[in-house]
Amino acid sequence: MELSHRKVSKKVRFVDASGNALANKTVSVKQTNHSFLFGCGAFEFIPYVLNGDDEHKVLTEYWLDVFNYGTLPFYWGNFEPVEGQPRTEMTMKVAKYLADKNVKVKGHPLCWHTVCADWLMKYDNETILKKQLERIDREVTGFKGVIDMWDVINEVVIMPIFDKYDNAITRICKEKGRVGLIKEVFDKAHECNPDAVLLLNDFNTSINYEILIDGCLNAGVPISAIGIQSHQHQGYWGKEKLEEVLERFSSFGLPIHFTENTLISGDIMPAHIVDLNDWQVDEWPSTPEGEERQAKEVEEMYRTLFAHPLVEAITTWDFRDGAWLNAPSGFIRKDNTAKPSYEMLKKLIRNEWWTDTTVTTDSEGNALIEGFKGDYCLEADGRSCEVKFTDDTAVDITI
Amino acid sequence: MELSHRKVSKKVRFVDASGNALANKTVSVKQTNHSFLFGCGAFEFIPYVLNGDDEHKVLTEYWLDVFNYGTLPFYWGNFEPVEGQPRTEMTMKVAKYLADKNVKVKGHPLCWHTVCADWLMKYDNETILKKQLERIDREVTGFKGVIDMWDVINEVVIMPIFDKYDNAITRICKEKGRVGLIKEVFDKAHECNPDAVLLLNDFNTSINYEILIDGCLNAGVPISAIGIQSHQHQGYWGKEKLEEVLERFSSFGLPIHFTENTLISGDIMPAHIVDLNDWQVDEWPSTPEGEERQAKEVEEMYRTLFAHPLVEAITTWDFRDGAWLNAPSGFIRKDNTAKPSYEMLKKLIRNEWWTDTTVTTDSEGNALIEGFKGDYCLEADGRSCEVKFTDDTAVDITI
Repeated sequence: MELSHRKVSKKVRFVDASGNALANKTVSVKQTNHSFLFGCGAFEFIPYVLNGDDEHKVLTEYWLDVFNYGTLPFYWGNFEPVEGQPRTEMTMKVAKYLADKNVKVKGHPLCWHTVCADWLMKYDNETILKKQLERIDREVTGFKGVIDMWDVINEVVIMPIFDKYDNAITRICKEKGRVGLIKEVFDKAHECNPDAVLLLNDFNTSINYEILIDGCLNAGVPISAIGIQSHQHQGYWGKEKLEEVLERFSSFGLPIHFTENTLISGDIMPAHIVDLNDWQVDEWPSTPEGEERQAKEVEEMYRTLFAHPLVEAITTWDFRDGAWLNAPSGFIRKDNTAKPSYEMLKKLIRNEWWTDTTVTTDSEGNALIEGFKGDYCLEADGRSCEVKFTDDTAVDITI
Repeated sequence: MELSHRKVSKKVRFVDASGNALANKTVSVKQTNHSFLFGCGAFEFIPYVLNGDDEHKVLTEYWLDVFNYGTLPFYWGNFEPVEGQPRTEMTMKVAKYLADKNVKVKGHPLCWHTVCADWLMKYDNETILKKQLERIDREVTGFKGVIDMWDVINEVVIMPIFDKYDNAITRICKEKGRVGLIKEVFDKAHECNPDAVLLLNDFNTSINYEILIDGCLNAGVPISAIGIQSHQHQGYWGKEKLEEVLERFSSFGLPIHFTENTLISGDIMPAHIVDLNDWQVDEWPSTPEGEERQAKEVEEMYRTLFAHPLVEAITTWDFRDGAWLNAPSGFIRKDNTAKPSYEMLKKLIRNEWWTDTTVTTDSEGNALIEGFKGDYCLEADGRSCEVKFTDDTAVDITI
């Protein structure tokens, strides 16, 4: 697997505080974070940060040992169940907790027809859109600096034809059209935080989504990255489909984020289920064979995605089993023990794709550092400094 | 069937050349043309206009007895088989012949991956696009005033993934993306003839095409009308599907043209054929039962489309059997006799939806004329005049 796009090969000249070359020294080069976003749903941090219970403490420790990127929920119906009473304070507390732990946070989503606020439905379409844009302003402006990455709008391919139940967002999407609504919500988010990473996100990976993105880009929608969901409750896509999806969506030249990945460690959901939400089961156990399979699939999928130059983020959706659909979809079992998939991913992220080495400088203080892109702590002579390595440009570093 | 959108109810005050009211007169009101475009492939006019043979003379007479709108071929590979030697003169001769007969002409198509010029493939993509735009300039500017309606680009949903054979247009569509290429070719056509009616045309009536149109409109592509193909070699869509397609594509508020309609009067092509061009048969006879069925389907389909306010044109693709795919797809049999479908459509267009009446003016010369939108010849006292009735605004008319 060719991974040069994930690495730097950097000429560094080490000097001391007086500007003298650190000649013939051993420098310890320890990676402290990845540039690549290895993410997971961070929903478990909410009860922990708010209540501090031991059960969730263990969970969040497991989480922080592997991931540097978390998704926090902003479902309108839950975030603001009563109009005018948003759960801003609670969510901000959790987001800041994660940011303090050096975790990048993404808000999910700003606009979606599901888990939408029912109270919106009493308004006419013009008012619904106005409130949608005000909501985006409130969240994107309010969380700026803490959350600078957003799933702006979710599942638009199906949005105007979604007919399981009436909701305010399908109504305005029907009226404005898909690209029209996308443009409105993206323009507002971009206006409120021009530096934010703004994602379009969908589970539909067909030609429909390609054409939608194509239209959006030609209409000037400020999409920063293409979000692709990959909930594989009905079985692993496999390397071939993964590569085919990557090839098709890389044609836009935009970064690609795998935003919602699921690989389960139990029985596979039957193929005839179209809307995954229709599969309601009381028990969906994780099995030993399932856990071995899941670990292998996690490995192949993460390796395949990490090898593709345009992929910048992979988020696994459920951290612990029994979350969405009660599925065995986590890295952690219901009893808070780690599955093989957890150990596998930790090995990849914190060992195989992680740099922890030493270099020795020459007589002029020069050394070549080769390592995975990310943050580093460099140490020599008992002194240290923090640096970020993202490209091959030569630099002077003072320790 | 509600047809008020197809009709005028017009207060007319009749005066003579001196401005005196034509009081208490009988005025003959004879429709001479429809505003609605009842079209058909006009390919048969090419041999007739060029050679004047009797066989095609009969055919074109049948044609002109029913239709007011014809499609002429501009397939690049046939129109300019050798680079720099376009068949402009011949095509202009036929187009002018039709225009003289009061037939509106549409050129089909300006950009398509099929029947494309093979000589384009020796150029790089930048040059191919340049030549495509020059070609549009040459045709749209050159035929302006004779042809002011164009299928600008054909079948874009499939265009970049079309893989039956290499061709220049698929190459540039892959590079520029669907909406990017559509925008280039439409902008050029619009620049060359700002008053032209410019169509996007596709056989794909799925959500793909909806999203493509949505993207184009948001990207500012000057689409005048949505072109929908309806080749029904594999069986009549039926009223329900027709109405469902109309509902979905009417959401854009643009005029809808059924650009390529086929209903056959023989055996139905098997459903497993995906690309209709793959069905190659030596004989595909028209049958008596098939002809009765075709006439019924033509009636239901034309009635359904004529009833929809946004539909402005219906074009049947083959006028005579044995054209595309050797199918029994025409109104006219191979032996040049008319099928029941021809008689049925003629009855609708020239009788049921046709106005031929008289009105009597009151003492001040006023009369109310109710009739189908279109051109009229009005006659009173042995004098006559030509008028166009397209709305209910009251007018004074001098006879």
